[in-house]
Amino acid sequence: MGDTVRRLAVLGSTGSIGRQTLQVARSFPSRFRVAALTAGQNLELLEQQVQEFEPAFVYCQAERSVGGARYLFPEDIARHMDVDLVVVATSGRVGLPATLAAVEAGKDVALANKESLVMAGELITRQADASGARILPIDSEHSAIWQCLRGEEQPPTRIVLTASGGPFRSLSREEMARVTAEQALRHPSWRMGSKVTIDSATLMNKGLEVIEAHWLFRMPYEHIQVLIHPQSIIHSMVELADGSVKAQMGPPDMRLPIQHALTYPERLPNPQLPRLDWSVLRELTFEPPDTDLFPCLAMAVEAGKTGGTLPAVLCGADEVAVELFLSGKIAFTDIARLVKQVLAEHDTVTSPGLEDITAADDWARQRLRALAGEGHPC
Amino acid sequence: MGDTVRRLAVLGSTGSIGRQTLQVARSFPSRFRVAALTAGQNLELLEQQVQEFEPAFVYCQAERSVGGARYLFPEDIARHMDVDLVVVATSGRVGLPATLAAVEAGKDVALANKESLVMAGELITRQADASGARILPIDSEHSAIWQCLRGEEQPPTRIVLTASGGPFRSLSREEMARVTAEQALRHPSWRMGSKVTIDSATLMNKGLEVIEAHWLFRMPYEHIQVLIHPQSIIHSMVELADGSVKAQMGPPDMRLPIQHALTYPERLPNPQLPRLDWSVLRELTFEPPDTDLFPCLAMAVEAGKTGGTLPAVLCGADEVAVELFLSGKIAFTDIARLVKQVLAEHDTVTSPGLEDITAADDWARQRLRALAGEGHPC
Repeated sequence: MGDTVRRLAVLGSTGSIGRQTLQVARSFPSRFRVAALTAGQNLELLEQQVQEFEPAFVYCQAERSVGGARYLFPEDIARHMDVDLVVVATSGRVGLPATLAAVEAGKDVALANKESLVMAGELITRQADASGARILPIDSEHSAIWQCLRGEEQPPTRIVLTASGGPFRSLSREEMARVTAEQALRHPSWRMGSKVTIDSATLMNKGLEVIEAHWLFRMPYEHIQVLIHPQSIIHSMVELADGSVKAQMGPPDMRLPIQHALTYPERLPNPQLPRLDWSVLRELTFEPPDTDLFPCLAMAVEAGKTGGTLPAVLCGADEVAVELFLSGKIAFTDIARLVKQVLAEHDTVTSPGLEDITAADDWARQRLRALAGEGHPC
Repeated sequence: MGDTVRRLAVLGSTGSIGRQTLQVARSFPSRFRVAALTAGQNLELLEQQVQEFEPAFVYCQAERSVGGARYLFPEDIARHMDVDLVVVATSGRVGLPATLAAVEAGKDVALANKESLVMAGELITRQADASGARILPIDSEHSAIWQCLRGEEQPPTRIVLTASGGPFRSLSREEMARVTAEQALRHPSWRMGSKVTIDSATLMNKGLEVIEAHWLFRMPYEHIQVLIHPQSIIHSMVELADGSVKAQMGPPDMRLPIQHALTYPERLPNPQLPRLDWSVLRELTFEPPDTDLFPCLAMAVEAGKTGGTLPAVLCGADEVAVELFLSGKIAFTDIARLVKQVLAEHDTVTSPGLEDITAADDWARQRLRALAGEGHPC
């Protein structure tokens, strides 16, 4: 435990992953110093966190002055020399510029923000290859794959991403059209932020994770398989060259993959983390995803295969569609319908730079609003 | 594929594991040369194997001259400078002297013969530590644990050995007393030799594997758990310091763990090996073992905990009991009853040498025969 202290920047510290990251940091005060905290609108919680962790740097969308910490933009925090590991715990596109800044500066990035890799996977991985930055996944599925590949010298022949299937996997198409935001927010196994919970209910989240896995593990889309596993105990699997399959398991608790990213290559005992109890666990089940009932999955994979700016369009359109659904303005099944239409209308730019990506994302957001009868058509 | 050729000695080449080892060797002719073959009584098959693989050395219990190969005792083969990897595929105690010889000579040993480690785990691991020999497990459970621990820098906090439960896990005690050898040889998931198949039906095999895991992974008995998993898809699991669990899976086919031991650290694609098909596999189930119905399991673990010569007594007594059951001379439930009595009568010698171990084993065999009303009482 006497190693050097790792200085963490926690971007999105008031969200679900951010708060759990701070719980892990709190468990190992001799290992981690929280050097920076950033948040959007939740000033009250951010102030408490600043008081407790006394970071050197802080950023808040809502307020320029928080405690005694120096105010810096997330991108500047991400590349600051007094930061060792950047935890990108924001959801949606706001995580992208800071992720890129960290990777360009050669910093290790513990990445919970899948949108960054989905929107700009080509750009980020190219920069990481050039700078030597490592991208350490926090998403439970990608953490599982990473853990299974520890010590393997060859790339896997297949990745099997497991999915709980969300709360609606047994509904009919008619029932699906009538589900409310409240129902969609009741995830059967994971406690998460609202964007990712809705994305789990549509399986869009799993589609985004396929794209994320493609970039993280340089895996052809044809070798990434999605499997519904309602118990959320097996977090994902890899098949190796000889056909041997390895799976990583654990109770559905994000603190375990967060801690793995923060302490890698070490594993630290943490009495706060639950453990699997095989005297209780009797059954793990699997079924193929229903691609008719959940069109977002195949739609996302297709956008990933096309590449260029299309995954950014997917992300932008989906983020707005989820917002509109959560505020009761569109039906659950409209999410897939509207995103599909925006994807179909887009002229993909290949090998895009950050500006192309941002422009595509902006266009997709406006276009989705317009199609939904909201805001100005572009 | 252009690496140096590994020269294999396959001890017990006409048995189930031996034949499957040769299948793997046959798949990669540029990787492996079969330098030695040994067998017991199956001269006909051995002669075919000698003709095909043209080994430099051969041994057969039944006949001193086999093809043009030089006749050597297994111990001399195991330590020969023209052998790189010794595959110990014999069952029962005959594997022990050769395993010890290989380990003393610093050779890597691919070990399918669990009795060696059960009888002489302390001796073998001490010698391996001194000589730098590696013991590469072939047993599917121990191969699974080894695969899960690849790339992990810290020892696991728990090992979960899975067991199919054998063909009788749903029987009553009364039904159990009446099962025939034919029924016991019909294993639900694995195709194996008769000794290990009967040991699987009594769960003695799992008890021996607990002792084997104790020595291979230097794991306290308290941290080794047995879990019934009838599908035999998860071959075993490890829990790591942070609570993360890793499992290794595959169709029940011994060629995969054999190949892993032979090619480690590489993994080679082998079209002959089956792969898991997640479109078919729907359910994995788990239950705790019924220790009342299967007393051999706890009996073996207790013998392991006591250590010294007691595990050798366990092995010797069990080997004879299985023989007597297979020849119809005792009932299935007599196996546990008689082995238990022999264990109870033994005066354990601590930190035994090879002679103590052999003497204890001899005594146990005679004693079991005597208790069963066979042979001479000692």
